[in-house]
Amino acid sequence: MATAREPIDFYFDFLSSYGYFASLRIEALAARHGREVRWHSMLLGVSVMKTMGLKPLLDTPLKSDYVLRDTARYMRRHGLQLKRKLTDPFMDPRAAARGFYWVRRNKPGQEAAFARAAFDSYWREGRDLGAAADVAALAPVIGAQPAAMLEGIESDAARADLRDAVAASLARGVFGSPFFIVDGEPFWGSDRLELLDQWLGAGG
Amino acid sequence: MATAREPIDFYFDFLSSYGYFASLRIEALAARHGREVRWHSMLLGVSVMKTMGLKPLLDTPLKSDYVLRDTARYMRRHGLQLKRKLTDPFMDPRAAARGFYWVRRNKPGQEAAFARAAFDSYWREGRDLGAAADVAALAPVIGAQPAAMLEGIESDAARADLRDAVAASLARGVFGSPFFIVDGEPFWGSDRLELLDQWLGAGG
Repeated sequence: MATAREPIDFYFDFLSSYGYFASLRIEALAARHGREVRWHSMLLGVSVMKTMGLKPLLDTPLKSDYVLRDTARYMRRHGLQLKRKLTDPFMDPRAAARGFYWVRRNKPGQEAAFARAAFDSYWREGRDLGAAADVAALAPVIGAQPAAMLEGIESDAARADLRDAVAASLARGVFGSPFFIVDGEPFWGSDRLELLDQWLGAGG
Repeated sequence: MATAREPIDFYFDFLSSYGYFASLRIEALAARHGREVRWHSMLLGVSVMKTMGLKPLLDTPLKSDYVLRDTARYMRRHGLQLKRKLTDPFMDPRAAARGFYWVRRNKPGQEAAFARAAFDSYWREGRDLGAAADVAALAPVIGAQPAAMLEGIESDAARADLRDAVAASLARGVFGSPFFIVDGEPFWGSDRLELLDQWLGAGG
């Protein structure tokens, strides 16, 4: 590696299946191009619903049917089996997102491992992470104590960190999950991973 | 070719830049897989705005910036230069769409050629096709008389054909441009052309 390259910024919402799918592939993709990945938890409820004024995908006529079909196809293609169904009621993602920022602040460098564990628990295992205690139960994965993490998730610092992170993501134009920015170039959607791959390979 | 294969249904709105981009590649892609293409003009104003209740892309905060960027990147990658800018006021696409259905009824088999000419005129040459006379001026491309086509575009038959076609597209779950259906499988977006390609290559 001659020169240090900018990392890939990877934005996701824990309740986004497409975000989960991307989380499974982004590290390998980045490694192929000598890049690191900086993970960022964001909230579709703020970007899509409040800022853009749109409805959730599954509440949007026509698109909901398509998304269910597209997701099933993606899972077949990548050999994924999930306990959670897209049509299951979805959790409030804020506890998981605050947990992510608590890890970033208190176990820096472990936030991606935490995010992978949370995604895995929610999507593959079908567990609910809507309550802070559910999220804190993942603490051992990153070598933390559940009690300390539970307190952290409910702290003002974690709330402020999440609020700041969401504001920063909006300021960078991030609205969907997954969303990637590398060398200032934005890529939206799990189906843009191939484009991102080509783009990095071709040098932009 | 052992058995006759189903054609690829290709749905587009003339005012959609992504639909235009797809129109430039779909025939070659289909030919690689021994498929024909059935072209269908649809109206985003009916699917996206009326049925789904969403805003036009460029009126949607955050997404508008992304779309401009993504389009510029796509054009660089594919070596496209267009006189029309995405931010130019867009035409009422109904005259072009009625022209398309008039061609399908009166010059069957020529509707794809007409659609390519209309896309080219609107996007690459930057001409306006909002008025029936502008559309009818393309008639020679498919061996028709402009006067006959003009009358056709304004006929009740063309209006009914467009209305029926849009209703049929909605009934099949089509909402975006471009949108493809092959062997019952839907694909949305110009960036899904690669996926469609792989899907056809792998046999679904």
